[in-house]
Formats: sequence, C-alpha cells, structure tokens
Amino acid sequence: MSELRQNVLTGDWVVFAKGRAQRPHEFVQPPRYVDPIPPYHATCPFCLGNEGDGRDEVLRLAGPEAGDRWQVRVVRNKFPAFAVEGERIRRTVGLYRQLTGVGYHEVIVDHPRHDMVPARMSVAEIAWILEAYRQRYVQLRQDPRVEAIILFKNHGEAAGSSLVHPHSQLTAVPIVPYQFRVHIEGAVRYLDSTGECIFCRMLAEELAAGDRLVCETEHFVAFCPYAALVPFHILILPRRHASAYDDITPAELPDLAKILKQVLWALHHALNNPDYNYTVRSVPTDDAATDYFHWYLSVMPRTSKIAGFELGSGMFINTVMPEESAAFLRAELAQNPIPEAIADIYRRVDFRAQTPQVDTAQA
Amino acid sequence: MSELRQNVLTGDWVVFAKGRAQRPHEFVQPPRYVDPIPPYHATCPFCLGNEGDGRDEVLRLAGPEAGDRWQVRVVRNKFPAFAVEGERIRRTVGLYRQLTGVGYHEVIVDHPRHDMVPARMSVAEIAWILEAYRQRYVQLRQDPRVEAIILFKNHGEAAGSSLVHPHSQLTAVPIVPYQFRVHIEGAVRYLDSTGECIFCRMLAEELAAGDRLVCETEHFVAFCPYAALVPFHILILPRRHASAYDDITPAELPDLAKILKQVLWALHHALNNPDYNYTVRSVPTDDAATDYFHWYLSVMPRTSKIAGFELGSGMFINTVMPEESAAFLRAELAQNPIPEAIADIYRRVDFRAQTPQVDTAQA
Repeated sequence: MSELRQNVLTGDWVVFAKGRAQRPHEFVQPPRYVDPIPPYHATCPFCLGNEGDGRDEVLRLAGPEAGDRWQVRVVRNKFPAFAVEGERIRRTVGLYRQLTGVGYHEVIVDHPRHDMVPARMSVAEIAWILEAYRQRYVQLRQDPRVEAIILFKNHGEAAGSSLVHPHSQLTAVPIVPYQFRVHIEGAVRYLDSTGECIFCRMLAEELAAGDRLVCETEHFVAFCPYAALVPFHILILPRRHASAYDDITPAELPDLAKILKQVLWALHHALNNPDYNYTVRSVPTDDAATDYFHWYLSVMPRTSKIAGFELGSGMFINTVMPEESAAFLRAELAQNPIPEAIADIYRRVDFRAQTPQVDTAQA
Repeated sequence: MSELRQNVLTGDWVVFAKGRAQRPHEFVQPPRYVDPIPPYHATCPFCLGNEGDGRDEVLRLAGPEAGDRWQVRVVRNKFPAFAVEGERIRRTVGLYRQLTGVGYHEVIVDHPRHDMVPARMSVAEIAWILEAYRQRYVQLRQDPRVEAIILFKNHGEAAGSSLVHPHSQLTAVPIVPYQFRVHIEGAVRYLDSTGECIFCRMLAEELAAGDRLVCETEHFVAFCPYAALVPFHILILPRRHASAYDDITPAELPDLAKILKQVLWALHHALNNPDYNYTVRSVPTDDAATDYFHWYLSVMPRTSKIAGFELGSGMFINTVMPEESAAFLRAELAQNPIPEAIADIYRRVDFRAQTPQVDTAQA
C-alpha cells in the first residue's frame, strides 16, 4: 500500500506510491547531446570574450583561479521579471489587487566556459559562485523595496533553462511570497510549542536516523527529506542555526561549495547529468535573524512531470522512497569518489587560448 | 514595468513580466505527430475491444450515441497511488507523521477511439465523460475514509500524460490537501468580512469587466483569471453557487459539456493542440454545501515550464496578460465557430468496423 508522509513545515502530504514504485536506476537519463558542446560559442552572451553585449554588469569576481580573466560575472537579466527603477505602488481594482513589479532580476554567469556544468567544476570554482550570491544578497537586501531574495538555478530544459552556458539567477521581489508565509507559520508554531527551531530538530533526527543522509561536511548536512517531493530531492542545511543566506561565514562558504559539489557530482554520475533546479530559501529580508527560520538549499531533479494531480491538489506523488534515493546516491559517492585532483583539472585549462578575442564594441 | 497581481483566494502574487512579454501566437505549437494516430491500437488497454486486460472496471456508460458499444468506461488505475483496501492508520516517527495511502485512483476512458481528443469530441460525448465523473464522485464520497476528490486530465507529454488514448483520472484521498485548506481559509475570511462567496463576487466582476471573458453559456462562465498562473489559464465557474461537483444538476451537466467543448476547441485551434491539464476542485467531502466554497474547473495549458523561480518562491511568472489571452481565444471562437454539425460527426463513425474483435480471455 502507498504511504503518505507529511511535510512538517507546511502540513501538506506527499504520496509515496508503492504501486508505481520505480528503482533508482530507472531514472538514469539517456545521453543528452549528440554533439559535444564547444568550450566557446561566438553568439553566447555569457562566454568569455563576449561581455560587451550591452547587458549591465553588476559584479565581476576573479580569484587566483582566474588568472587575468573573470571567474564569475553577475549581469542584469536582459528580459527582467522585475524592474530596478520605480516605486512600489499598490492599486485596487474592484476585488483585485496589483503592485508595480519593482525589484531585481540578475543572472549569475557561473563560469567563463560554455561547456561547463557545476558537477564538473572544482570546489573553488563553485565557491566563487556562492560568493557572488552572497555579495549580491548583501547588496540587494539593503533596498527597502525588497522583501525577499530567491537564488536559483535551472539546469537543463526540463528545469526551464533555455541557455546551455552555466548560469544561475537571483530575484529580489517586492512582496513576501505566500509560500514563505506558510513555511514561517509552520516554523513559528513549532517554536512556540517546543522552544526549538524545526529545522534544527529535523537535522538532529536525520543525523540520528542516518538512512536519508547523502553526505556531510564540517558545516553542512545533505539529506533526502522525509516527505521528499520528487525522486532524489535533496536538502542541504547548515548545522549552525542561521536564518538567511548572507549569514554564511567565511569558513562555511567553501564548505558549502564542497557539499554542493558532492551532491551535484553524485546526481551527475548516478543519473547521467539529470535536469535539476536548486533554490536557496532564506527568511524575508526584513526579518533578519530569527529563532524559527533556518536557511537551506533545496535540489530538485526534474526527472518526473508535474501533472494534473499536483496542480489540482498541491500534493506530489513520488515513486521513490527518500531512503532509497539517499542509499543510491551514497553508493555512487562510495564507488565513485571525487578525485582529489579534480579541483585543479579545469583550472589548468587555458581559456584564453580557446577563446578568440572579440572586439566588444562590435559584439 | 512588470505588474504583480494577487490571487484573491490565496493572497499569493503572480508576476506579469512585461519585459519578457510574448504575443499569444508565439505559443502556437509545432506539429505534434509525424504519423497519424490510428483509431485503434492493438496493445492499448483503453481501446474498444481491448477491455479484457485485467483492470477492474467500475463503471461503463453507453448513451444513445454508443449503439451497442460503450461510450465511457471507468477502471481502476493499474498502478494506483491509493489502495482501495485497508484502513486509515496514522503513525508518528519522531518529528514525522505518516498515514496509510488508502483511497481511490481511477482512470476514466474518455472515448472508445484511440485517436480522439476532447476538443474534437461532440458535446454529447463530453457530457458522458462528465456524467461518469459525477457518478463516481457520488459513489466515492460515501466512503468515510475519503476526505477530498480530485478530478483531472493530463493531455499530452508536457502535462504528464504517458498514454495517447484519451483518458482522465479521479483520485479520492484520505486527507484534506493543504492547498484546499488555504483556499478555504481565504474564502471563509472573505465570507466573514463581506457576507459573500468570493467566487460569486469574482464572477460578477468578470461579467461586468468583460475583458477576461472567453465564453459563456446558460449556466457557466469561462474566463482567464485576473492573476492567471500561465498563458491561457482558464477558469470555468458555475453561475449558481454550489460547493461540490456532485451538486451539478441534469440541466447543468450538458451545459458544462458545451462550455468545456468551446474552451478546448478554442485552445486546440488557436494553439494547435497544446498540452494541458484540467482539474475540478470541490470542497472537501465532509463539508458538503457551504456558503463560502464554489466548485470550479481550471484549465492550465502547459506551454511554459515550471522552473527554479516557481519552485523557490511558489510564485509564477506569466508572460501573457490574461486580457490578451482571453481576447486571442475569443477571436478564435469568432473566426472559427464550432460547426453545428460537429456534434454528430464522430457519432456516425462505425467504431466496430475499425475495431477487430478481441478475445478478452487471451488479451
């Protein structure tokens, strides 16, 4: 018989459909590309050398990995969902309410190289992406029009990505999304009842149970949640209670890069580069440090479809138990550990040798 | 600048991204099939003549349209998400809660013919599908283990359908989904504040405004909601206040078939058979007739992807204003009205002539 499991935060239920149970290896993806992706593409606005396409650059980072090139760039989205200029103006039209769409919509160019994927980057390279997130978070939360900041990545077509070049996105929105309110209500109710952060409690229970753990580092724990929405759904939680991503310390940041690398490496190799989204969820920007909310990163592979049942009920049907997803990913990491050397492999590539110098004025 | 619009029921916001605005005709789908679909497929479990595949049939309807064949069948899902036998048993595991997955998961075979789509069916044929929904709803709500019944259809691959043969589904679930609770809370709050059903109010405002209307019949109104989640998102509401689908009257049922036919016809012709989901949302089964909840049918074309922003915030980005979606569909219905004769076209097809008689014992 199927088993329903409750999301402790929202109170919602996920259906683990044993009648339609699938083995983890059934989710291994078919080969993705017929032709290899080139390291540089002349018309790609994110490739090294193509920076002069008119998009406003708001941040450029270049660590020792980068030599005299950049490592990560942040640019304004060319077709933004939110406009930087303007005021928050509310208007009521009969029953209905509207608000001007002010805020920020930025693209983080994760890597200079067109054919790179995060699963294959070095830990140092991933750390630069996370540092770019942090710097933009710190900057944009100061704007009083901003209520919440959502960091996310769409990897692959099923995850909604239309560009091959590795990139992630930041949106700073002028309202608190209702889903945030629901999560906060659940977390506040738990704190009021027990005196504890519900995420800290979850972390303790996951570490004690062990069967849903994927991997651990000094500062972070990755596990498949008890009521995982989809096969291989993974949460990464900081061990230290903190409510927002910009609370991350200089010691935690490279450690987050390390665990994210392990998680994406495991998914990439176990499932042959599946499409996925990851999102970073923090408390609304006005709330800063709270006892109830704990920021986290959620990785959601997109190997199954969101269909009528999900849209009509808000519930998900998951065909793989999280214990099984976690065991499958742990086995991958045990059989295929990340080579020590990989941190350096791509650093040694001479990008410039492969990247024609483009006159940015003409691009 | 973008415009944010609030969902009156949930309080959530939808982003109408003018910077990435698309014209309705950009959503016209490429040709779907290289080869024509045959009217009968020997290995399809839903085709006329293939009934003996071991699936439990729970209902068979045959109106005058059907001759001595069936028009609609309802069978148990071969891989059900919910089990018919068993008790609702709750269990707590530390922080977590689980429940046995009892309930119903049924497949409505919409039509005997493999190559049929609802947009091309006669109004009478659609009415038989809706009558099958009603009969199963009436039957299953009597089971005390059932808390809510969700009717839905997945049309096409992007909508999560894996079978070509036209079919829809019914799930009767042993808990009230949290999304139902959220909608009810919003509706109750509005009733308490104003003394009115929020859906009745919405209907009145939509009829007065007119610019989001798609079409109307005697008993129903179809419109693109003010905070439409996706391009061409359509709600069909009964004019008469009623809380659950099984309240539908003998006069309303064929009229719902008529408006659903118009909506699906308009989408089919305007967008070249797009993938879509539709869902029927009623009040939880224990609540029966309420002043606050109004049942409805929601049609959601799946021409855009649910990506990291949606997963990370719960909000949607919509690139077409509902006023524009509605005008596009109204224009389609004006230029390409449903021919009077179509109600009869498929009734005249002799299915049996095209369907080999299969020995069900051997199937």
